[in-house]
Amino acid sequence: MTDYKLEQVQKNSCFGGVVYKYQHYSPVLSCTMRFNIYLPPAVSANPNSKVPVLYFLSGLTCTEDNMITKSGVLQYLSNENIALVTPDTSPRNCGIEGEEDAWDLGTGAGFYVDATTPKWSKHYNMYSYISNELPEIISSNFPIIKSKSSIFGHSMGGHGAIMIALRNPGMFKSVSAFAPICHPSECHVGIKCFEEYLGPKSACWDKYDSTELASNYQDQHISILMDQGSDDSFLKDNSLLPDHLVAAVENSKSFISLETRVHPGYDHSYWFVQSFIKDHIDFHAKFLNA
Amino acid sequence: MTDYKLEQVQKNSCFGGVVYKYQHYSPVLSCTMRFNIYLPPAVSANPNSKVPVLYFLSGLTCTEDNMITKSGVLQYLSNENIALVTPDTSPRNCGIEGEEDAWDLGTGAGFYVDATTPKWSKHYNMYSYISNELPEIISSNFPIIKSKSSIFGHSMGGHGAIMIALRNPGMFKSVSAFAPICHPSECHVGIKCFEEYLGPKSACWDKYDSTELASNYQDQHISILMDQGSDDSFLKDNSLLPDHLVAAVENSKSFISLETRVHPGYDHSYWFVQSFIKDHIDFHAKFLNA
Repeated sequence: MTDYKLEQVQKNSCFGGVVYKYQHYSPVLSCTMRFNIYLPPAVSANPNSKVPVLYFLSGLTCTEDNMITKSGVLQYLSNENIALVTPDTSPRNCGIEGEEDAWDLGTGAGFYVDATTPKWSKHYNMYSYISNELPEIISSNFPIIKSKSSIFGHSMGGHGAIMIALRNPGMFKSVSAFAPICHPSECHVGIKCFEEYLGPKSACWDKYDSTELASNYQDQHISILMDQGSDDSFLKDNSLLPDHLVAAVENSKSFISLETRVHPGYDHSYWFVQSFIKDHIDFHAKFLNA
Repeated sequence: MTDYKLEQVQKNSCFGGVVYKYQHYSPVLSCTMRFNIYLPPAVSANPNSKVPVLYFLSGLTCTEDNMITKSGVLQYLSNENIALVTPDTSPRNCGIEGEEDAWDLGTGAGFYVDATTPKWSKHYNMYSYISNELPEIISSNFPIIKSKSSIFGHSMGGHGAIMIALRNPGMFKSVSAFAPICHPSECHVGIKCFEEYLGPKSACWDKYDSTELASNYQDQHISILMDQGSDDSFLKDNSLLPDHLVAAVENSKSFISLETRVHPGYDHSYWFVQSFIKDHIDFHAKFLNA
């Protein structure tokens, strides 16, 4: 078994459960990574109990902390006795030239792909990290029920959540997203990252693109909830393209249920995310606590 | 009328209301200050409506942002239609020698006093700012009901909330605090700041000390709710001394109702604050929405 050198960095009581911060060595990313995990009251009450788990993928510039500190989610997870895992958004401190130079490339911008270009491929393998290595670490070290996992995310992390769920049918009970980047192959920030990490546009981009994947999805049925603010500047500059995903799902509507909600006046921030986070926990709890 | 040069810096929808960030010139602090204000859904629905207001004073090292982003409070204020004002914890960028050198003195550590020492007295007048200037700015520029104001705070800000309420009977309908510094004249961090801002220990410290004030309070009845985590490192190193406040209130129990709760396993962080913030809003709403 791989030794990930898992190390507890912090521990805080919250809503009857505990928030832990861990760091570990990631062989797939060739660097040290951090994540937070919230274990709800059921675990504090009985260390032998196991609980369902939600993974949350954050957006560009975020660390493992933004969502868990800013979304107000823990009270709802406490009520539902669901664990939460919040990973970081990219490898860090890898010594790659220019990794810190832009907000939308390199550090904080892993984009949940496995890089194939020589410059990034040693470290930037967030697809394998999120879809494989991290769930293995979580299920072998924490009291969670692996078969009751769901995933959600925000912006770049909404792209990651939908894309990873569509590529791994049955792995997640449900998926949701706040203002996801729905069609990375066709928006400025997606194209920038895909070209750097995957090389010039080719068919291999498609397997990391929710719209392309949704359009051809014919596997286990999956339910997706998507929330979008109407005053989101990334929506207005065509970085998100939710209508592309909605259209793609039309092709696969026997296999994908997509509920989309538009919220007038809301933007792309965690002020938006926190306003609707309860609905997302209610949505996932229907599947995880069924 | 004073021109505070009030300027809107940011505006975000949240839970049916709006979070604004403003900056303004503060004559009493001789510098530019920032605060956030949340106006709940009743104001969005009808710009002519006015709502009660809660002031939250933050602790050492905090800015105007920590509580409003990390406490998950806005959903409860939204439900109760109460406004929230979160000021900064000190003047900033004043060019005072050493103002940035320590986490517990100068920037981020205003301690809600009016400084009398030559080094600090031009800028460090947070008592007058919070008890007078800021409420004037808020009530003349925003749709709030000044007679329905309450105040709460955390740590150094819990000290500020209780102390300012006891010195201004009738100004606030109710007071609450998370892990407040209850007896600043007798704890290390309080003594350090009081000596710097007020000079060597003297009777003039008493008017900024909740325990001293409570012990002699004989004015309009006031209700205080105080929450404390049992695993709080600042409790353990005797920075908070809640038992001193409890004992002092015994002398004034016809005038002060103090409800104190101890929460096993909780520390000093916003993980603690968010776990019990709903109880504080429920407590204040009883007075503000009576």
